[in-house]
Amino acid sequence: MGVALPREAISSEAIDVLIGRPAGWTEANFSIGSRYWARDGETSSALGALAAENALLDAGWDASDLDVIIGACGVMEQPIPGTSVLIQKRLGIGDSGIPAFDVNSTCLSFLSALQVALHGFAAGGWKKVLIVAADIASAALDFKTPETSVIFGDGAVAIALEAGGPHRVLAMQFASYGTGAELCKLEAGGTRLRPHEDLDGFLAKSRFQMDGAGLFKVTARHFPDFLGALFGRAGVEEKDVGVVVPHQASAAALEHLKRSMPSCHDRTVDIFRRFGNQIAASLPHALFHARQDGLLRPGVLSLLVGSSAGISLGGAVVEW
Amino acid sequence: MGVALPREAISSEAIDVLIGRPAGWTEANFSIGSRYWARDGETSSALGALAAENALLDAGWDASDLDVIIGACGVMEQPIPGTSVLIQKRLGIGDSGIPAFDVNSTCLSFLSALQVALHGFAAGGWKKVLIVAADIASAALDFKTPETSVIFGDGAVAIALEAGGPHRVLAMQFASYGTGAELCKLEAGGTRLRPHEDLDGFLAKSRFQMDGAGLFKVTARHFPDFLGALFGRAGVEEKDVGVVVPHQASAAALEHLKRSMPSCHDRTVDIFRRFGNQIAASLPHALFHARQDGLLRPGVLSLLVGSSAGISLGGAVVEW
Repeated sequence: MGVALPREAISSEAIDVLIGRPAGWTEANFSIGSRYWARDGETSSALGALAAENALLDAGWDASDLDVIIGACGVMEQPIPGTSVLIQKRLGIGDSGIPAFDVNSTCLSFLSALQVALHGFAAGGWKKVLIVAADIASAALDFKTPETSVIFGDGAVAIALEAGGPHRVLAMQFASYGTGAELCKLEAGGTRLRPHEDLDGFLAKSRFQMDGAGLFKVTARHFPDFLGALFGRAGVEEKDVGVVVPHQASAAALEHLKRSMPSCHDRTVDIFRRFGNQIAASLPHALFHARQDGLLRPGVLSLLVGSSAGISLGGAVVEW
Repeated sequence: MGVALPREAISSEAIDVLIGRPAGWTEANFSIGSRYWARDGETSSALGALAAENALLDAGWDASDLDVIIGACGVMEQPIPGTSVLIQKRLGIGDSGIPAFDVNSTCLSFLSALQVALHGFAAGGWKKVLIVAADIASAALDFKTPETSVIFGDGAVAIALEAGGPHRVLAMQFASYGTGAELCKLEAGGTRLRPHEDLDGFLAKSRFQMDGAGLFKVTARHFPDFLGALFGRAGVEEKDVGVVVPHQASAAALEHLKRSMPSCHDRTVDIFRRFGNQIAASLPHALFHARQDGLLRPGVLSLLVGSSAGISLGGAVVEW
């Protein structure tokens, strides 16, 4: 695995100044100390390529060994072409013909790409896969609503995964609830809103919007059954989980997760205070820290789990 | 399979007026008679859901039977959440929990999604998959350059595919060349260009750009070897192909394809004159017509093939 962060860490004290609040307000309200924000040239593909190089180094692979590069970004760097191709180019293998495509399920994109990779292994389609999750959340934040802006950070994480490797996936599961599509959205940037026809309308929708209470309601309603079904398919119980690797949605969401799985409270990876919510890079970043801290030992079951815009839920029980 | 088109067909005579050229100029230069352009409310998810309903009707499936919905759009309707979730909601199954995510490789998104679905079947992950390719190309065209604008049309195509169905895939192959990423691009709409920081810069890059000659050069250089390798993996020769189902990039690209596979000249599906280049919907739309015309009979090998921004090439040899 490999990680790449923007050069600049932004403290919550700096955020207090930015949004005109008293010193300590952001940290007190959102339990976040810092997050990294991209500056000049630090795009998704730039950070993604750095994370990819680190992952390749970690794996002892050459970029030219890859069978496929799967981009797993929450929001693309530009609509055409996909971020995975831009990363391929930056890795110096832009003439190699190594296939590159993107998978998207917003904050769960890494988990969806992992499913796609594992299916590809099982089908004999690929042997060496590189998944890269890179997101620049800071590009579209609305600081008039602190709860949808100050908790987000940028970053990239890559994982080099091999067919027949030591990983063992006991179960993997997703659920989408499109009735919640309005609860978490970024409307401008695709083909629906057109800046040349209605610029004011476009700009008014060009920042991320989230109804936190509504989102929590939908997630909380479905999560217990979702988790029960996942454990059932994996043939395990909560107590069998050695480490919980969650999407770092918010301090409140992490606290709710810990309370809903009390026996895993102290075995839940929580890097939110340092990095915030890094969109699709968040879950694999937590996985990176779990690995670095020696928590992903053979015989230890990990629960990868999270929610995303959609609303979608995703989870996997994996031995690494 | 199912198709949905915008209500309004735009004739090439209307285009001549729009871009200030003499009557007959567009048709004479681009061998295109008409294309469909979306108007009020005809978004990717709206057309995609209509195409999906038609495909479900064709398959005799209920939407609630699906194991997964895979969005395969070239450009998303909005950055968050993905188009597949918006389609799930419009299908009236927004409370079902049926998973939805998106796969992107621009004009080859359908073929990439087909690979993801087939891998999922082989891995035992899914039984009933709905792939929906929907694109609204007309949202971001630059009419100052007719060659990058007048040939594009909108539309949506869906396919309901079942594990263990009659389809047999002899080989499937992709190749990406990120060195050509600048040749075909839409830069504004993702996280790199920010309208709030540099509005003029954003607007200047908010229409599709293509270097046709450069694109042709890269594609022509790699295509013969790509096709040879695909045929080799499938264990077939050009003469064994019963029907060629290409991405409808342009009349010139289709003509080049026909010339490069002379024995398939009269067995190549060409719907470009009526619909133009419908981005990711183009290849499955050609497949729909091949099926409707009775060309996808058992025992007949089809070659699905195309190129996309990236630059990427994709192909599959399939018996349906």
